[in-house]
Amino acid sequence: MNHASTLRHHCARVIVSGTLCFMTHILAAQSSNFKNTLLPQPSKVALGSGAIPITKNFTVSFNGTHNTILEAGVRRTLDSLETETDTPLSKELQAVNPTLVIQVQDVTGTRPTLETDETYTLSVSKDKITLQAHTVFGALHGLQTLQQLVQVEDGRYVIPAVDINDSPRFPWRGFMLDVSRHFMPLPVIYRTLDGMAAVKLNVFHWHLTDDQGFRIESKLFPLLTSKGSDGLFYTQDQVRAVIAYASARGIRIVPEFDVPGHVTSWLVGMPQFGSVRRSYEISRTFGVWDGALDPTRESTYQFLDAFIGEMSALFPDDYLHLGGDESNGADWKANPAIVAYMHAHNMKSTDDLQTYFSTRVLTLVHQHHKQMVGWDEILTPGTPKDALIQSWRGVESLAVAAKQGNRGILSAPYYLDGMKSAERMYLDDPIPSNTTLTAAEQKLILGGEVCMWAEQITPQTVDSRVWPRTAALAERFWSPRDTRDVHDMYRRLEVESIRLDGLGLSHISGPESGLRQLAGSEAAASQLAVLVSTLSPVSFGDRYNQQKTSQLTPMGNAVDYTRPDPPLREDLRLLVEGYLHSSSPADHIAARKQLQTLFQSWVSSGSSLDALSIEHPKLNQLTLRRAQLPKLGQLGLQSLASIESHTAPAPAWIDEQNSVLKTAADHSELTDFVILPPLQQLLDTAGLH
Amino acid sequence: MNHASTLRHHCARVIVSGTLCFMTHILAAQSSNFKNTLLPQPSKVALGSGAIPITKNFTVSFNGTHNTILEAGVRRTLDSLETETDTPLSKELQAVNPTLVIQVQDVTGTRPTLETDETYTLSVSKDKITLQAHTVFGALHGLQTLQQLVQVEDGRYVIPAVDINDSPRFPWRGFMLDVSRHFMPLPVIYRTLDGMAAVKLNVFHWHLTDDQGFRIESKLFPLLTSKGSDGLFYTQDQVRAVIAYASARGIRIVPEFDVPGHVTSWLVGMPQFGSVRRSYEISRTFGVWDGALDPTRESTYQFLDAFIGEMSALFPDDYLHLGGDESNGADWKANPAIVAYMHAHNMKSTDDLQTYFSTRVLTLVHQHHKQMVGWDEILTPGTPKDALIQSWRGVESLAVAAKQGNRGILSAPYYLDGMKSAERMYLDDPIPSNTTLTAAEQKLILGGEVCMWAEQITPQTVDSRVWPRTAALAERFWSPRDTRDVHDMYRRLEVESIRLDGLGLSHISGPESGLRQLAGSEAAASQLAVLVSTLSPVSFGDRYNQQKTSQLTPMGNAVDYTRPDPPLREDLRLLVEGYLHSSSPADHIAARKQLQTLFQSWVSSGSSLDALSIEHPKLNQLTLRRAQLPKLGQLGLQSLASIESHTAPAPAWIDEQNSVLKTAADHSELTDFVILPPLQQLLDTAGLH
Repeated sequence: MNHASTLRHHCARVIVSGTLCFMTHILAAQSSNFKNTLLPQPSKVALGSGAIPITKNFTVSFNGTHNTILEAGVRRTLDSLETETDTPLSKELQAVNPTLVIQVQDVTGTRPTLETDETYTLSVSKDKITLQAHTVFGALHGLQTLQQLVQVEDGRYVIPAVDINDSPRFPWRGFMLDVSRHFMPLPVIYRTLDGMAAVKLNVFHWHLTDDQGFRIESKLFPLLTSKGSDGLFYTQDQVRAVIAYASARGIRIVPEFDVPGHVTSWLVGMPQFGSVRRSYEISRTFGVWDGALDPTRESTYQFLDAFIGEMSALFPDDYLHLGGDESNGADWKANPAIVAYMHAHNMKSTDDLQTYFSTRVLTLVHQHHKQMVGWDEILTPGTPKDALIQSWRGVESLAVAAKQGNRGILSAPYYLDGMKSAERMYLDDPIPSNTTLTAAEQKLILGGEVCMWAEQITPQTVDSRVWPRTAALAERFWSPRDTRDVHDMYRRLEVESIRLDGLGLSHISGPESGLRQLAGSEAAASQLAVLVSTLSPVSFGDRYNQQKTSQLTPMGNAVDYTRPDPPLREDLRLLVEGYLHSSSPADHIAARKQLQTLFQSWVSSGSSLDALSIEHPKLNQLTLRRAQLPKLGQLGLQSLASIESHTAPAPAWIDEQNSVLKTAADHSELTDFVILPPLQQLLDTAGLH
Repeated sequence: MNHASTLRHHCARVIVSGTLCFMTHILAAQSSNFKNTLLPQPSKVALGSGAIPITKNFTVSFNGTHNTILEAGVRRTLDSLETETDTPLSKELQAVNPTLVIQVQDVTGTRPTLETDETYTLSVSKDKITLQAHTVFGALHGLQTLQQLVQVEDGRYVIPAVDINDSPRFPWRGFMLDVSRHFMPLPVIYRTLDGMAAVKLNVFHWHLTDDQGFRIESKLFPLLTSKGSDGLFYTQDQVRAVIAYASARGIRIVPEFDVPGHVTSWLVGMPQFGSVRRSYEISRTFGVWDGALDPTRESTYQFLDAFIGEMSALFPDDYLHLGGDESNGADWKANPAIVAYMHAHNMKSTDDLQTYFSTRVLTLVHQHHKQMVGWDEILTPGTPKDALIQSWRGVESLAVAAKQGNRGILSAPYYLDGMKSAERMYLDDPIPSNTTLTAAEQKLILGGEVCMWAEQITPQTVDSRVWPRTAALAERFWSPRDTRDVHDMYRRLEVESIRLDGLGLSHISGPESGLRQLAGSEAAASQLAVLVSTLSPVSFGDRYNQQKTSQLTPMGNAVDYTRPDPPLREDLRLLVEGYLHSSSPADHIAARKQLQTLFQSWVSSGSSLDALSIEHPKLNQLTLRRAQLPKLGQLGLQSLASIESHTAPAPAWIDEQNSVLKTAADHSELTDFVILPPLQQLLDTAGLH
């Protein structure tokens, strides 16, 4: 990336308190008419010449057959193009001499499966666009790509000439949402599916049950929700509607019913299936609990048989997830009958008992014509080969599974509540280049799943934890392994983030609204945003350790409205890089001015937030941070001044500033600063003079 | 309002591009511990001394009976207090020695009616809060007031000692939403109900049918939606859920099925009931169409009887709205059989025929044990006394109705698509102080309804048209007639706007997201916001005349993300008033600095938006405005300079600036500037020197 484009990129975002953005760089930096903002990156892109303008004469036709899912997808695409370009478009789909021709070989599929061929080709010439796919679901992916191709040329909206030949690297590209710890109402589910479709994710793994809530209606066992859900659950009618919506967007729904552990909420209404007879209540706190199904009684399997049968009828996908994680065995050991059973059956440990349970459950799943997914723990040497392993432990346990002949998907690096940067998660690969697996074994790694656990999120904040980071991971699962340029990913992710915002995802607007609640007014919120934009939440574990978060903890605090990997992290890095290394004097000056404005806003933020916190005591959750930011602003300003004047600061001052940076690097007030490395770079550079 | 508080008010909002806000004024300006932000204003408020802090020991109990609606309302209140104060609160509702005691006389009601007693008293002493009401629905209002009372004192969240004795001025406080011209999905409906409950509105008038779409499932006549809705309608199950949700918040649902005109969407599937046999299609454009039910055939009434019967069973409220507006009679005159019928029955005009129709429909409504609401047009000398008239024409036609013995509700001044300021609508009273109605006649005026027609709104923009202006009108309908202090209303409305934002209304976040779509990034959107914050959309009529808006017009344009009566209008007025008339030199200087910063941001906005529009041609929708704003900024800066230096500007310059203001006052690019009067004031003041 050249420095002009570095500045241009930056220009779009950093400066919120001034207008120093040098927009004239924008065009100068474009080396080609094609501005690639595709995400995920297709497997093959070849540039043509010219472009098709989007005018009101833009028309569409199918070449051959189509179905209602494809029609609806095309209409959504036209709506999107229409809104983006402010051009009314005909929704007639059988135009003569159409601009866009769509040709799909097989339109019989009405829902995707693991085996669905998702390949598509998209060929744009100067006067025609051809989208070809084997299946409707491949064509839907092509339509998403088409929307991402829209750009501006000479003041017109166009689709540039390009040949794209695209298919996913992995067939299982999932996103898991925990709706047990905090219930997520239907609007969250629907907008999540919209976001997934936009970035070509194809499995929504619905973590429907856990200790803290049983979220799916069972007509056979209504006590499960009447006692275990606080009234917060999805009806079967609602689930059917969600499945239809997802199917029409090429997304499979894989439900999870986590057994034999994590079942406290089941046992509130149905304690007879617990390993220990006690009075169960919905768990309000988080952790690994003792409550577990009794694997030694036939009644347990009769119950599971009926329940799995009911759910198998409700959820049409070929896969059911039966959990299996974090069963601690405590209640099994506490029940003499279970211990006796283990002895009688020559089981040496509760692990053996869990293997026995898993095997029985797998048989039930088979009887209902489904295949089973489970977490790492279900993998033992005796695990049947068709069980699919989801690894929360790491790529290594997936390798173990593959060597044993079991298929697997990777989740360990993609836990969003770790609050890691998109960059760190993005570089973790389900099949790293140094893998020791054979080609055949590699084929057993089906892909990965991003996981959003819900201990510390609410419907208002969930999107800010999920997006846009999940879009980066969608690229990891879809695009070739060598698509690993982090800075290019961030450049495209910024664009995609705004697209997702336009789809109704609330990753930007949710935290903004939260800041207004904290600060009491629109302008006060923008003051607070100066501080909050420099922070990210600490990881789930760190927050849990400090806060002992429970299901009952109020979740409308400052930390809840910080965003993981906020845009400023990459923006500031780029800006400092542009300032220090730009070969163009104008760019250097522009970067300096922008840095000065930014640092000055940090300096000013302190007193205004101090004043604000008198009326809004909740802001005292950031007392330390709001004292630190002005110091960091001063550090930045002073470093700039030293660099500009070629005068090294006093060593004592440098020591002092290093100490400021060191203190600021602590996890404090449930937050981390994301701005420290570029500041260190500026300080170090100043010290060299 | 004293000037210190003027500045304080301003401080919260205007300055988005600097940090010049003098927060130290905040406390100094508080003359009492009680900061009244109640909206609507209760009928009687008496201040006590002291306050109850909200701590984790805050508890609740019922004194006497309660029901599930009340319990749920209390839990919502506790959730709100918990989030606002970051204090975990017990949800146990039978505490011993409770902080809050709730006593309701009659808990048998499970849905509100027009006759429901909504009175409540709320008494807060230093150590106890007592909420008393005759009905559950009165108690729900009291709980809303309680939430609005929370404030900060000495760094703690408290509820100040106060005695409130409150009941509504009018029993019918409605909000009408048109879901036909643009369909509004369920999340819009639910959040609208949340907003209504927050400001004590109690009738959701659901305009379910019109020429452009039939939005309610009929199981008897499925062709109505299968042909007339584009698939966008509410199922009866969904409607039942909405009614339950509304009832639990003290809100009645009054559905409207508009007949005999505005029925094009009905006739697409059921042309046999039209007055003229033709092929009907869903109207895509707006206006008054010829399509009308045939009032001369018995089959029409048989159909309506069945349909009204079905809807009467679905909607439990005592009232059904049957429209009756804007039937132009053209199709009636075009059908010889209808003309012959009129002759045979001695009807002199199509008005007579409409009266006949209305009377027949009213009879059907009665047969289904309902009362009828209709628009002005149903009122003729022969209209039965129990028909309720909703006036879109004005307070005069309501007076005519009342003199004739008909009850009425006023809507004419409260059409949100007129884009008038909250102030203008707020001052329009259903029973003006100069009314000529007798006391008995006045009793027939039941209240009013705010109306949101949907020609030019989408789910993304609807809230920005509805809120917070509707909250001001809720006060008009609830509070005593003499509650008319516009500036105090705006002060409280600002606070309420943020509360509504916290409830999930998108009046702030929707337009913000829209600006990001237009500008392509978060920071570019904040540049665009400098301009957009100075603009409001022109009225429906002006926009229609310029744009010929249809249902198919893309609605993601700059004008869609301007807000009617945006906060800056009142803020700038206050700021200039503070600058020109403050008796405190410090306040004067603070106001000047804030004005300078604001004007400077206007000056800078021009070039940054010009640059931005190269990549985002949709911004050229505001080409004129973005050229005008910098000139207005210069006008402001120069006027300030003249005033400060006590030097009158050259007369030629003043003429030129007056001409700038005059040009800026034109309706242009579908927008109006809201900042002109204070600028004129500054310019005039400068000229006096």
